[in-house]
Amino acid sequence: MSKIRMGMVGGGQGAFIGAVHRIAANIDGQIELVCGAFASNAEKSKASGRALYLNDDRVYPDYQTMFDSEAQLPAHQRMQFVAIVTPNHMHYPVAKAALEAGFHVLSDKPATLNLEEVKSLKKIVEKTGLLYGLTHTYSGYPLVKHAKDMIANGEIGQVRKVMVEYIQGWLSEPETEDNKQASWRTDPSRSGISGCMGDIGSHAAHLAEYISGKKITHVCAELSTFVKGRRLDDDGIVLLKMQDDVKGTLQASQISAGEENNLTIRIYGEKAGLEWRQQEPNSLAIKPLSGPMQILRTGLVNSESALASTRTPAGHPEGYLEAFANIYLNFAKAVADFEKGQTIDAQTYDFPSIADGLRGMALVQSFVDSSATDTKWFELSPLLAE
Amino acid sequence: MSKIRMGMVGGGQGAFIGAVHRIAANIDGQIELVCGAFASNAEKSKASGRALYLNDDRVYPDYQTMFDSEAQLPAHQRMQFVAIVTPNHMHYPVAKAALEAGFHVLSDKPATLNLEEVKSLKKIVEKTGLLYGLTHTYSGYPLVKHAKDMIANGEIGQVRKVMVEYIQGWLSEPETEDNKQASWRTDPSRSGISGCMGDIGSHAAHLAEYISGKKITHVCAELSTFVKGRRLDDDGIVLLKMQDDVKGTLQASQISAGEENNLTIRIYGEKAGLEWRQQEPNSLAIKPLSGPMQILRTGLVNSESALASTRTPAGHPEGYLEAFANIYLNFAKAVADFEKGQTIDAQTYDFPSIADGLRGMALVQSFVDSSATDTKWFELSPLLAE
Amino acid sequence: MSKIRMGMVGGGQGAFIGAVHRIAANIDGQIELVCGAFASNAEKSKASGRALYLNDDRVYPDYQTMFDSEAQLPAHQRMQFVAIVTPNHMHYPVAKAALEAGFHVLSDKPATLNLEEVKSLKKIVEKTGLLYGLTHTYSGYPLVKHAKDMIANGEIGQVRKVMVEYIQGWLSEPETEDNKQASWRTDPSRSGISGCMGDIGSHAAHLAEYISGKKITHVCAELSTFVKGRRLDDDGIVLLKMQDDVKGTLQASQISAGEENNLTIRIYGEKAGLEWRQQEPNSLAIKPLSGPMQILRTGLVNSESALASTRTPAGHPEGYLEAFANIYLNFAKAVADFEKGQTIDAQTYDFPSIADGLRGMALVQSFVDSSATDTKWFELSPLLAE
Amino acid sequence: MSKIRMGMVGGGQGAFIGAVHRIAANIDGQIELVCGAFASNAEKSKASGRALYLNDDRVYPDYQTMFDSEAQLPAHQRMQFVAIVTPNHMHYPVAKAALEAGFHVLSDKPATLNLEEVKSLKKIVEKTGLLYGLTHTYSGYPLVKHAKDMIANGEIGQVRKVMVEYIQGWLSEPETEDNKQASWRTDPSRSGISGCMGDIGSHAAHLAEYISGKKITHVCAELSTFVKGRRLDDDGIVLLKMQDDVKGTLQASQISAGEENNLTIRIYGEKAGLEWRQQEPNSLAIKPLSGPMQILRTGLVNSESALASTRTPAGHPEGYLEAFANIYLNFAKAVADFEKGQTIDAQTYDFPSIADGLRGMALVQSFVDSSATDTKWFELSPLLAE
Repeated sequence: MSKIRMGMVGGGQGAFIGAVHRIAANIDGQIELVCGAFASNAEKSKASGRALYLNDDRVYPDYQTMFDSEAQLPAHQRMQFVAIVTPNHMHYPVAKAALEAGFHVLSDKPATLNLEEVKSLKKIVEKTGLLYGLTHTYSGYPLVKHAKDMIANGEIGQVRKVMVEYIQGWLSEPETEDNKQASWRTDPSRSGISGCMGDIGSHAAHLAEYISGKKITHVCAELSTFVKGRRLDDDGIVLLKMQDDVKGTLQASQISAGEENNLTIRIYGEKAGLEWRQQEPNSLAIKPLSGPMQILRTGLVNSESALASTRTPAGHPEGYLEAFANIYLNFAKAVADFEKGQTIDAQTYDFPSIADGLRGMALVQSFVDSSATDTKWFELSPLLAE
Repeated sequence: MSKIRMGMVGGGQGAFIGAVHRIAANIDGQIELVCGAFASNAEKSKASGRALYLNDDRVYPDYQTMFDSEAQLPAHQRMQFVAIVTPNHMHYPVAKAALEAGFHVLSDKPATLNLEEVKSLKKIVEKTGLLYGLTHTYSGYPLVKHAKDMIANGEIGQVRKVMVEYIQGWLSEPETEDNKQASWRTDPSRSGISGCMGDIGSHAAHLAEYISGKKITHVCAELSTFVKGRRLDDDGIVLLKMQDDVKGTLQASQISAGEENNLTIRIYGEKAGLEWRQQEPNSLAIKPLSGPMQILRTGLVNSESALASTRTPAGHPEGYLEAFANIYLNFAKAVADFEKGQTIDAQTYDFPSIADGLRGMALVQSFVDSSATDTKWFELSPLLAE
Repeated sequence: MSKIRMGMVGGGQGAFIGAVHRIAANIDGQIELVCGAFASNAEKSKASGRALYLNDDRVYPDYQTMFDSEAQLPAHQRMQFVAIVTPNHMHYPVAKAALEAGFHVLSDKPATLNLEEVKSLKKIVEKTGLLYGLTHTYSGYPLVKHAKDMIANGEIGQVRKVMVEYIQGWLSEPETEDNKQASWRTDPSRSGISGCMGDIGSHAAHLAEYISGKKITHVCAELSTFVKGRRLDDDGIVLLKMQDDVKGTLQASQISAGEENNLTIRIYGEKAGLEWRQQEPNSLAIKPLSGPMQILRTGLVNSESALASTRTPAGHPEGYLEAFANIYLNFAKAVADFEKGQTIDAQTYDFPSIADGLRGMALVQSFVDSSATDTKWFELSPLLAE
Repeated sequence: MSKIRMGMVGGGQGAFIGAVHRIAANIDGQIELVCGAFASNAEKSKASGRALYLNDDRVYPDYQTMFDSEAQLPAHQRMQFVAIVTPNHMHYPVAKAALEAGFHVLSDKPATLNLEEVKSLKKIVEKTGLLYGLTHTYSGYPLVKHAKDMIANGEIGQVRKVMVEYIQGWLSEPETEDNKQASWRTDPSRSGISGCMGDIGSHAAHLAEYISGKKITHVCAELSTFVKGRRLDDDGIVLLKMQDDVKGTLQASQISAGEENNLTIRIYGEKAGLEWRQQEPNSLAIKPLSGPMQILRTGLVNSESALASTRTPAGHPEGYLEAFANIYLNFAKAVADFEKGQTIDAQTYDFPSIADGLRGMALVQSFVDSSATDTKWFELSPLLAE
């Protein structure tokens, strides 16, 4: 038995999200980084690989070379899956190439640059039969999984309302070219049709659907660009209709001055409400119709999925990196079982799949389209049609 | 010099809000309750008056008798203003009668049952030249006043976003006739065209405009009735456009299980954000673009209006009753100065006026009308036209 | 039936605690201020009385004149009890004179300047048979009463630990003569043998005994004076032994920079812990051995004493002034019932009594004495002996 | 260049702290686990090694065999340091054997079972000249490092008071043999002379000295055993004198029902106070003498040591495992530099050293000794003498 072997595309020195993916892969000692094409520049890729203690011969100048070369290696040496951590516009071509070369894919979100690409990618995933995962990190938190289980078990009764918000302030001022993170995120050619809603609104939507178990069916969105000269939205406010007469709101913003990474969700059912805040992720407030509010805590809740996602006893706070690691851990288990010949269902293994990727792209498209019309309710289902 | 003399209509034994008004009037020792028509039933009115240590001859069987009788008393004995604390449908007739009998009015909100009445009332106020105040309590909190001053002084820069929510859970289940509070609030003939939005959505709207200094110009509302058989809305979610390109959301709910009286407002400007939560009203978070979040505290902030509304040193928490008392205190000052012949401007004396009453009724109407259309944005201004 | 008539000694213009006492007396409309000797200067007393809308003939130049004159008035006019709100050194002579003139006394704490005086005062109270109350405000909070009831009912099991702390920062720097509050509090001739421990340590001790139901039996104290030149302690840390093998700590400080009025108590029993923080007084955390922490809230707890001390529904925060008013309300009920000929027991009426006054003075003495010895445990009981 | 090679003693399947150490070592991809003696039972050790993907030939039946065998391997293969994660009584013999075999040691705390052993171990460390680190995890948090730097830079002025507490509730009931964690921690032969104070009181003391920069000089301790039949203390309360006239309190408890892992420290200086709570470790409250409280946040503070210990942007919470990893990261850097021939100073590399191990054992001894005497102040320095 050996660790699962991972390659990486993107994530060279100085990149933020690549380092996060590597930590997530490292934490549990189940995955080994064996190769990478870390930068579009071959020299930079090489230097990045050395800093990661890789042998030079497993560090490649570009992703196609990597897939070709790795495919030549003996089965017990070659990478088993690739982590894609490039800017958005490269997600599709890299994932496509990887799948076609026979490698599983774990991609940073969004799945692709636009709705057309994700529909194409979905077909490739289905055709190859390989595994495809998406790092909607926030669904990796133990108390998020517990909240999802509580609702599925009817513990808050029929769901009525969902209030989700993901607000940041770091784009309150015009981006400068120095700020690598800001510059590509606000460039339509690298980021896609939406800025804020694509970057973080999509996380909020995924979380709302994941926990509540209800899909969004209609949206009424108002997207804004508060910073002059910016080419994409930096704020969006949305009314939601969801399955089974659930109503809700979704708010995302990158111009909410002074906010860090404030993702908060509240869900109200007939019998109780619940509230979870990503910035203090080890508490989940349960507010029953009568009786006092209860504060559930990571390490003390008893749902199986939460326990399996927790590494330390209560009071030893876990955070974002552990949530991220839970996505990796679940995906790695799926890879291991796939190679033993088992059939893999993303929902059972609890990692976001290409279906989530499609919904995510359709939701972002719906926010943009709804914002452009003067009709109140915009229906999502036509966008999902193939 | 003597205390300001107050009469009261409504607020007999068992009523919630009448007792709150009396405490608010009592706290500072500037106002004396001298007479009342506490209930539509004369016996019950009498009993209520005795429990309040009033002489029987100043306790009246109905409001018209009270206004007539008090008007006969010598100037230094008769009441100077009346507090109206009846269910909504009586606000208009009582206020009208009081003003026409020569008495100032301090009314519980909403000003009237509907938009037509409030326009009529506004004319009566203007014709009589008497004082009219409205108890939008939440604007009475010291840190609310400080937040308003900070924004007016440009301390958070140009305002961009307003997020206000007022959520409760006490109407999550069908109301019973025993629950006096619930039953009239969900009865259109006593409560008006809206339930939740009229009752608390209007407070949220007033607070948003009060602090931000920006008026709502357009709304996009979705009102819901989650409890089967209820005749009025018990939940509303609204997108807002406000003056000067401000965008926002307003959410009100009475079916958010487990919530008590959760009125929260966040306002983001170009330079900083601020957040205030009514349930912990002695803290105001300021979130600058750079540098740490600061927690301002009642008793430590230095704006004049906040200091004048604070009775104790920092760390000795003040609350809802003191906020309410601040409305009374400001209104009583206005009455005293009016009687000295001064011209009174509600904004300077810092109490909600008939103009706020009109805006409130128009906003509630706009929520109801917007919810009924399939056009996204509903314009407020036509409703305000006389 | 009429309101209870109160006189006041001290509390002239500019005094902090006098105004607080008046608000506390006003809130519920059960007590009427009818007379006062507000300042040692007759002119200042007169001016203060006018600002309070009193007739000049009920405003007295000194307390002895007031007691003599009021005693001459017809029974239905004269004051029924006196509120004493002077600096500490005057508590004893004023209370003594009032009782000897036949008036009940509600005194600000501490009861007297020293242990000898309080023992004398206790005898006078017993001899006159009149009512004596002490404003240990913090026991007036509804959730404090609920916590006390929970423990008395065994809901947290046998008590094991008490952790109480009362920390402030306002004396972090040398006091100046301008700061009236600071200057008398650090002057032994007006404040007594202790500064910080007498002023606020005594509140902490009272609260610990009130809630836990266990008396302190031994102390091990270290008192400090951090600010150079100050004549009294400005900080104290104490180990406690209490009845029934309870252990604990008591900490009081006035040099804890940046703290406002942070009185916090935690009590741990065999089955659960509880935590209450005065600065957010409407929440009481219950932490059971197993199962989630619960947040009890003012207005939602069901103990009789808490409900009787609450004026508004949950989510409408009450605070310090309402807690203070609860002491007044209970004392006023006792006065009313006393005058109907009933026997009054302070514990049943739930107000701090002369017995609490004696314990308070003995505890402060024990802190001072313990701090001066090199023996670890100092026993309280000898100080309580008459 | 290659990763630092680590061996492990203890931490077989089912052990809690061993897994934590491995995660801490994994996170940053700088350290590779190459060998281990994971259990006293050879079969169990083997099975544990396989689960960790180690080759059987690097999994040893006992620690002495491991040190002997590894010492035979070529320099570029053999382990460079050993992590000791056994119960307390094995810390000393394993560390001694490792050092004598030429390996650096990173040990779980306490350094040894008793004061005598740690003095002996200190001599061995000095004699061998090898590196010795101790995992006082809580000093690994970025905001703890920032707090230390602020104080060292004089930002809160001269320190006056330290209040540290570490309270848990998990030993509120008698331990059973099933509870592996509880049973050895309350067994003097495996845990040492103290239960609670040795286990967590020592962490509290280390944190207090680390942040404040002041050493404890005298203690006045009261240790208790609340659970009948338990052989060691399960609670301790301590008054402290520290260098430069600092006073303080240290409280540790394992019978504080409902508490998880509540380590909280507050330090007050002449100019400001600060407060940090381990359970919400990404906020550090700064309370200046005047001006509002400020909430510093991980990722936004600018001290070099904090930034070097932070992996994600603000709002992406890091926790206990990352704090632990920071100790490993610093120790690994020291090992790498040692092997390059540099002189290593534990303080510069910022990891707890054998000197901290000695202080920790002396402090625990002082708590026990002080608790047994009736003299108030117990002096620490004689215990530190060699």
